[in-house]
Amino acid sequence: MSAPSELRRDPTGGGWVIIAAGRAARPDDFRHQPVHHSGGSAGASETCPFCPGRESGTPPEVAAVRTPGSAPDGPGWRVRVVPNKYPALLRGPEPPRSRRRGFFESLDGVGVHEVVIETPDHEADFPSLEPGQAVDILRTWRDRIREIESEPQYAYIQLFKNYGREAGASLGHPHSQIVATPIIPQRVRDEIEAAARFHAGTGDCLHCRLIEEESAREERLILRNEAFIVTAPYASRFPYEMHVHPLRHEALFSASGDRDLEILAASLQDVLGRFDRALDDPPFNLVLHQAPSPRQTGGSGPADAVSYHWHLEILPVLTRVAGFEWGTGFYINPVPPEAAAAGLRA
Amino acid sequence: MSAPSELRRDPTGGGWVIIAAGRAARPDDFRHQPVHHSGGSAGASETCPFCPGRESGTPPEVAAVRTPGSAPDGPGWRVRVVPNKYPALLRGPEPPRSRRRGFFESLDGVGVHEVVIETPDHEADFPSLEPGQAVDILRTWRDRIREIESEPQYAYIQLFKNYGREAGASLGHPHSQIVATPIIPQRVRDEIEAAARFHAGTGDCLHCRLIEEESAREERLILRNEAFIVTAPYASRFPYEMHVHPLRHEALFSASGDRDLEILAASLQDVLGRFDRALDDPPFNLVLHQAPSPRQTGGSGPADAVSYHWHLEILPVLTRVAGFEWGTGFYINPVPPEAAAAGLRA
Repeated sequence: MSAPSELRRDPTGGGWVIIAAGRAARPDDFRHQPVHHSGGSAGASETCPFCPGRESGTPPEVAAVRTPGSAPDGPGWRVRVVPNKYPALLRGPEPPRSRRRGFFESLDGVGVHEVVIETPDHEADFPSLEPGQAVDILRTWRDRIREIESEPQYAYIQLFKNYGREAGASLGHPHSQIVATPIIPQRVRDEIEAAARFHAGTGDCLHCRLIEEESAREERLILRNEAFIVTAPYASRFPYEMHVHPLRHEALFSASGDRDLEILAASLQDVLGRFDRALDDPPFNLVLHQAPSPRQTGGSGPADAVSYHWHLEILPVLTRVAGFEWGTGFYINPVPPEAAAAGLRA
Repeated sequence: MSAPSELRRDPTGGGWVIIAAGRAARPDDFRHQPVHHSGGSAGASETCPFCPGRESGTPPEVAAVRTPGSAPDGPGWRVRVVPNKYPALLRGPEPPRSRRRGFFESLDGVGVHEVVIETPDHEADFPSLEPGQAVDILRTWRDRIREIESEPQYAYIQLFKNYGREAGASLGHPHSQIVATPIIPQRVRDEIEAAARFHAGTGDCLHCRLIEEESAREERLILRNEAFIVTAPYASRFPYEMHVHPLRHEALFSASGDRDLEILAASLQDVLGRFDRALDDPPFNLVLHQAPSPRQTGGSGPADAVSYHWHLEILPVLTRVAGFEWGTGFYINPVPPEAAAAGLRA
């Protein structure tokens, strides 16, 4: 007989989940290909367009961390940013044209779609990078986001990393992506509104209060240091989901200082290493949630975006999203986050 | 260079999608295992608990279409309904207890989780079933939903089918599932509210108007007969997504008459056969969207649930949901629905 399950509401605005502990309990119940040791890391290095020496296989770079004196679009880089060769959105005229025919409403697909090639080493993985390299990646994320935030035609910037083929990576070389969209996505808007409502009611930041609660309770705590906290969220949608919050209240990741990023890089290396050990190198998605830039929305974005608190969500791909989730929009998670946190703390 | 992409808003309340035609254009760009011819249909018939003669491998049946005189939980059935052995939700006390500790809100995971075993034949697939068998499956769906609708403690009933391992099916024997939840899921609520707003503004049903528009435009039409219409929706989230609407306005699938179900069964056999031919037997999810039962919400559900219009969504699993989708809640679809409809009409 199964353990009874529990419905939990995401206090940060994401809806309900079903925590169904009876369905699977141990990490090895989740069959998956370890990303590195099985060709799960898609794309051979022999033909990889992200490897050094094949810079001409990508569109011209828009930014790079390079050995002084090395030329753009040649070797000598440690981190390299290029436009996506198959972009979901293209830079275009501003403002994007909107069309309406009956109830069919559309908008020009203008935006930015860039790829951050995180290291020259095709086989590297984030936890075992030399620490300075990890910091260079995070600085590149911040600097590209700042740069795009200065372009007023984009309403929101989404940074994400797909690790492993099952997580949607089509190339195995370590990389992340930045997409700027002409509208604020609904999921972001929902989270911002939940934070704004809480702020209006209490004068406090919802996420700061959550951080206090999770620090005191400890049962969902995975890591806490002088600047960041990593938790298994109360209403985790996925087994072993982790959220990374800065302790200091700040709406924008792009406002992070160099010292913040050094600590964040070390924190990410730590917790992604725990994934590797506890779950045998699982595929995952990493996504940034930050406020829309005030420069971009001209103050006309969600009223209280300043009450938002940026964070990273790390979502292992161990289960399949299936009919129930597509139909209802809520998730069945067989691993209580308290058990996941205990497993990742160990 | 890629074709420009377009953002489209789902007129039925599901948010925005990016139609990015430059990323992939032809059906054979989507690598996947045909479900039948590759072990993609998980689980050998030799050990399958859904095959005739192994009825004791499931919990006792709650309903069946049987040869007259055959005994429950033995052979002689054509469709068999059993509780899920690993249920996400369990029948329990009513009303479900709700708890709140700080901002952590939870609810007892009470509900129903049943499996509809669609045929005794492990290798059968829906398009090639004998027509009477297909009708028996749909009648069983309707009758089980009606039965659960008579139990007032459940707020919503979700019917779905996961076809193929990549779509989340853990057993290959043809089956579908019914889950009753103690709350109305947000995605359903959003759709009902979009329909209610449209109804309040125009006096019309949003979906009836959509059906008229799509019938007149024809470019997204896949099939239309005397009782149903199948379209590739304007803001399709997934390549080759299809929606099936009854032409007659009706909030509840469970109100369907036998003649409706006969025509629906034939329509589903037709369009799922088109999937098979155009996309080489792709994995898919099928989900029902209907109004919450008035009996269950005691009239306290979304005000205008009667203005809703039930439909089926059929979602092929050809692309991966990845970081961008998890971060933003909106989808990148590389196949414009007009192209998908043309491909499926052919």
